[in-house]
Amino acid sequence: MTAKIAILGASGYTGAELVRIIASHPGMEVAALAADRKAGMAMRDVFPHLAHLDLPTLVTIDEIDFSAIDLCFCALPHVTSQQVIPGLPADLKVVDLSADFRLRDPAAYEKWYGQPHQAVELQKEAVYGLTEFYREEIRGARFVAGTGCNAATGLFSLVPLFRAGLIDPDSVILDMKVGVSGAGRSLKENLLHAELSEGWMPYAAGGKHRHLGEFDQEFSLAAGREVRVQFTPTLLPANRGILSAAYVQGDAAALHAALVEAYQDEPFLHVLPMGQVPSTRSIRGSNMVHLGVAAERAKGRATVFAALDNLTKGSSGQAVQNANLMLGLEETEGLMMAPLFP
Amino acid sequence: MTAKIAILGASGYTGAELVRIIASHPGMEVAALAADRKAGMAMRDVFPHLAHLDLPTLVTIDEIDFSAIDLCFCALPHVTSQQVIPGLPADLKVVDLSADFRLRDPAAYEKWYGQPHQAVELQKEAVYGLTEFYREEIRGARFVAGTGCNAATGLFSLVPLFRAGLIDPDSVILDMKVGVSGAGRSLKENLLHAELSEGWMPYAAGGKHRHLGEFDQEFSLAAGREVRVQFTPTLLPANRGILSAAYVQGDAAALHAALVEAYQDEPFLHVLPMGQVPSTRSIRGSNMVHLGVAAERAKGRATVFAALDNLTKGSSGQAVQNANLMLGLEETEGLMMAPLFP
Amino acid sequence: MTAKIAILGASGYTGAELVRIIASHPGMEVAALAADRKAGMAMRDVFPHLAHLDLPTLVTIDEIDFSAIDLCFCALPHVTSQQVIPGLPADLKVVDLSADFRLRDPAAYEKWYGQPHQAVELQKEAVYGLTEFYREEIRGARFVAGTGCNAATGLFSLVPLFRAGLIDPDSVILDMKVGVSGAGRSLKENLLHAELSEGWMPYAAGGKHRHLGEFDQEFSLAAGREVRVQFTPTLLPANRGILSAAYVQGDAAALHAALVEAYQDEPFLHVLPMGQVPSTRSIRGSNMVHLGVAAERAKGRATVFAALDNLTKGSSGQAVQNANLMLGLEETEGLMMAPLFP
Amino acid sequence: MTAKIAILGASGYTGAELVRIIASHPGMEVAALAADRKAGMAMRDVFPHLAHLDLPTLVTIDEIDFSAIDLCFCALPHVTSQQVIPGLPADLKVVDLSADFRLRDPAAYEKWYGQPHQAVELQKEAVYGLTEFYREEIRGARFVAGTGCNAATGLFSLVPLFRAGLIDPDSVILDMKVGVSGAGRSLKENLLHAELSEGWMPYAAGGKHRHLGEFDQEFSLAAGREVRVQFTPTLLPANRGILSAAYVQGDAAALHAALVEAYQDEPFLHVLPMGQVPSTRSIRGSNMVHLGVAAERAKGRATVFAALDNLTKGSSGQAVQNANLMLGLEETEGLMMAPLFP
Repeated sequence: MTAKIAILGASGYTGAELVRIIASHPGMEVAALAADRKAGMAMRDVFPHLAHLDLPTLVTIDEIDFSAIDLCFCALPHVTSQQVIPGLPADLKVVDLSADFRLRDPAAYEKWYGQPHQAVELQKEAVYGLTEFYREEIRGARFVAGTGCNAATGLFSLVPLFRAGLIDPDSVILDMKVGVSGAGRSLKENLLHAELSEGWMPYAAGGKHRHLGEFDQEFSLAAGREVRVQFTPTLLPANRGILSAAYVQGDAAALHAALVEAYQDEPFLHVLPMGQVPSTRSIRGSNMVHLGVAAERAKGRATVFAALDNLTKGSSGQAVQNANLMLGLEETEGLMMAPLFP
Repeated sequence: MTAKIAILGASGYTGAELVRIIASHPGMEVAALAADRKAGMAMRDVFPHLAHLDLPTLVTIDEIDFSAIDLCFCALPHVTSQQVIPGLPADLKVVDLSADFRLRDPAAYEKWYGQPHQAVELQKEAVYGLTEFYREEIRGARFVAGTGCNAATGLFSLVPLFRAGLIDPDSVILDMKVGVSGAGRSLKENLLHAELSEGWMPYAAGGKHRHLGEFDQEFSLAAGREVRVQFTPTLLPANRGILSAAYVQGDAAALHAALVEAYQDEPFLHVLPMGQVPSTRSIRGSNMVHLGVAAERAKGRATVFAALDNLTKGSSGQAVQNANLMLGLEETEGLMMAPLFP
Repeated sequence: MTAKIAILGASGYTGAELVRIIASHPGMEVAALAADRKAGMAMRDVFPHLAHLDLPTLVTIDEIDFSAIDLCFCALPHVTSQQVIPGLPADLKVVDLSADFRLRDPAAYEKWYGQPHQAVELQKEAVYGLTEFYREEIRGARFVAGTGCNAATGLFSLVPLFRAGLIDPDSVILDMKVGVSGAGRSLKENLLHAELSEGWMPYAAGGKHRHLGEFDQEFSLAAGREVRVQFTPTLLPANRGILSAAYVQGDAAALHAALVEAYQDEPFLHVLPMGQVPSTRSIRGSNMVHLGVAAERAKGRATVFAALDNLTKGSSGQAVQNANLMLGLEETEGLMMAPLFP
Repeated sequence: MTAKIAILGASGYTGAELVRIIASHPGMEVAALAADRKAGMAMRDVFPHLAHLDLPTLVTIDEIDFSAIDLCFCALPHVTSQQVIPGLPADLKVVDLSADFRLRDPAAYEKWYGQPHQAVELQKEAVYGLTEFYREEIRGARFVAGTGCNAATGLFSLVPLFRAGLIDPDSVILDMKVGVSGAGRSLKENLLHAELSEGWMPYAAGGKHRHLGEFDQEFSLAAGREVRVQFTPTLLPANRGILSAAYVQGDAAALHAALVEAYQDEPFLHVLPMGQVPSTRSIRGSNMVHLGVAAERAKGRATVFAALDNLTKGSSGQAVQNANLMLGLEETEGLMMAPLFP
């Protein structure tokens, strides 16, 4: 039997990526696609690369008969998500891809997003959707909040190290180099080709990026104490991928060994041999994460590198991975496509 | 039962693309990988993006036990292919991706490649591997010669029109805009990022490109008379994709109707509505071809556009499509992955 | 003495390019910068790359004291230009960079731009601003209308050939590959990095591009009869540059000789040796045009290639070249900067 | 009077950049160009973007009459430089752009470059060529060793802060995002467009980059004690530019004030307002450096950002700046070209 899937917010990049993945997924089929402003359009007119697929016409959310839906992906903009999801059937399985339900503490949400949370009760139910760390909770969950793409990259790099107490929690610096698709299909000047190509720059520097809320929450949990890392992303002239360097105090060999052990049975997490570094070219379009560790000159200093595709493992691939568990399917189903290179 | 596949020349881009496709192909498995100069290396060290796959170590061609192989892809450099393939078992199914066996006429080969053909007998056996036009011959073939990527793009644009006599054979101009991966993983100055990014230029202009030999052969056959088209490719700062504009004398509506009819049952060929134009962004990483027709101002002038991925439908995807037929598998098996966008 | 320059529409790419050029121009200085919606801002906040220059604050057009201005560049959007320029002092020297005054025939304007011209009287005064072909008229002009960037590329390729009657006027096809900055700093989905990088496609195909109006006007004039060429531009993942291929009926050697002779004294037009082709990498950021001619296989067929930088020679550099003549300065003053490569 | 300039190693990117700059320099003219393997070629055939310039034909170094040369730039590969320069006339003014003479301590050279220095005496004479910090020594020098491009970026960020004792010398981390032209015009697989575009990765991670030798030397000098920073560069899909983030312990406001004060009279160093961050798009093709400071969440933590063009301010522009001083010219002569954007 094939699970019937609805996608809300199907006209954005993460919506398109969900369709791309599900198109090759033997256990899912796209039963409904919603995009309020583009309702009535054919998906092939919004995304010509999906022209060969037999997909439902875009509708408004109201038009969907959710009784025929097994699981709903919400790829809506932030804030919209917390307005829409409370109105969905209470027993509908939902994976949210927005930032709205990632922070368990409503005060933290208000701090980072500048306004009170509008669905505090629903927040209590949300399971944080980084599969590798919350697998069992997700398996039994009705409502999962997918992580941020930067957050995922940092968590894969460091959570096992915080848990094992192998790094100094007070001196962690995360420097990420990120492709532009993470910003979505929005019309902003800094996302234009003419601005970005040959022009790279940091953004949200100085501790202002909202994914810091996720880092604070999850790293503190992993370390068993309050952790506040530094984080600086740089927007690159490239479409897909995040490459993270985590500068830490810790023994490189021990860190490498801890990651190898933590991830040895993980189908999507690949720890490179000691001293090797990952590249975004090696994970593009896939659900894979490549990790590497290098020892620095200064004794006790190491750098942990990680690379993933922000639209796949950082967002829509992760969402399908979670949905697989929630639907009782094999966790890797539909997700083993090899990266596209070159 | 899964077909056991050998890939000769596995360390190039088309070799890697074959592995990428076969990794998700339910009817094939990679049983042997050869790359003479890199024999002994693990594939993950040559192509880190394939690190998650359980692949055989690279060997020399001599080390392969072909009795255990059902079909062999030759992704070797030109000339090497005609030296190697005659030495393979005479009953081994082979799909060649090089240019060596595409031209039926040894004199045409010598003209375009500047040296006599070294395996004239084998050439006689070769079936030209553009599946959509040679489907039945390929189904029964032992040895198939895959087409060039530019050739494929032009043939999909025009063969049905030549066959139907809808265009003037003496005034066809093909202008193609091509990504750099078509040139392979070779160390040439003009393929460096610093030379190519923000720098595009024609190459092999003035009727010098070797794929003209293929155009001459196939267009003449389709038209039932000698045809010599003009062809100018431009190398772009991009990795994958070919976008072709064919400037022709013919009635645009009739051309569009002819393409729609010719391709209506083709799973990989998608004719856009009249007046719409294809983009490489819509076929990247897939086996799809998008075609479009526009009427020009001058009465009786039209332009036929086509876009495909040179490494997939233009090379390795086409090769797998042929292999599917040769092995009695479903033609589309393993090839329905959706394009990667963005 | 230094000419005092005003730039209207200083917050767009052509405005910024004017400032870049004038910053190194010994005979000009920027005296006023207008940008209605950004009035009050410092230029360094609109264009941080100009931060080191001592520039006037952006103002509205009304705030400029034109009595202190020697020449005014109008880099305003189309239509806005024809509303603003009639209100400027009648004796002010003006170079317009918009499309508003390029077409001498108001009916042609209405046909291509879909509305009646609003300043027909002023249109009569406008001199068409392609310096190499209208040098003497420009020297004495008060009001010059700069050409379109695609138009300039095509005219440099073909005007001397039409004038000499060396090509068949009825079968010319122009295929141009253009960088994205020609579309300006406008927020459109197809100009986003995530859409354009690795995704190229034709636009305004089928004889719809507005620069056809300029081709019709100038080619007909050069040929002494009505000429209607075909023209298809393709938008590339690159910022600056236009590469044009003109497919023509004519003798390649004669065409090459005619271009060499026509341009032998031109400081900005460089005809490559017979058979060589130009690249955008060789003219980026400069006022240079590189041209090349290749003979095709078919007797009497040739291709004329041209490359220029759409923002410099195609727009702002051309405008300064015209302004130099109008102000009695040396034509090349401030314009001999070498291209930027890589 | 115009200084007669020789360029050794004129066929590389830094050689071409020297020609580009000198072409607009009123006080210099190119009198000799050497490139051993390309001797006899016209510069326009090696670098078509310089076709409009009247340049001497490439010769071997031996063919140059140095008695007619006022200053010689050596843009030779590392190691070659230390073999060639000792053979030049002893009173010839020389600016070396290689890494050969940057490290004052021969032991440090041997450590980082893996072999003994071959011109130890000449090393003693070399003045370290970062103009802003060694202006007076350079003015009187005969032989100047230009800095590395990464080194320059880091030194501009931090030298005034080390001098003023405003940052903790033991916890500095430099993370740089660098364009590919810094690797030169060399044929390496990782520099191919197909490998680099959409694929970014760190290199020389784990304290292995040779520019660390320069950081150690200059930061220790500035701090008055031994300093060993961390440094990780990431190679980006872009041609020109370095963006550096220096993660430091120090008071952000104090750091910003110190940089503003240190650079207030520097024509090429521009400190952005507190909290603003630089972009490579704003310095491309120019001799400018943009710097910014952001306060981090953790009290006493700050990040210092810097952006420059590796080929201009990081190499050839810096070399001309030094040459201006050595020749008694205005320091900024020929170097005030505005950045190219977009």
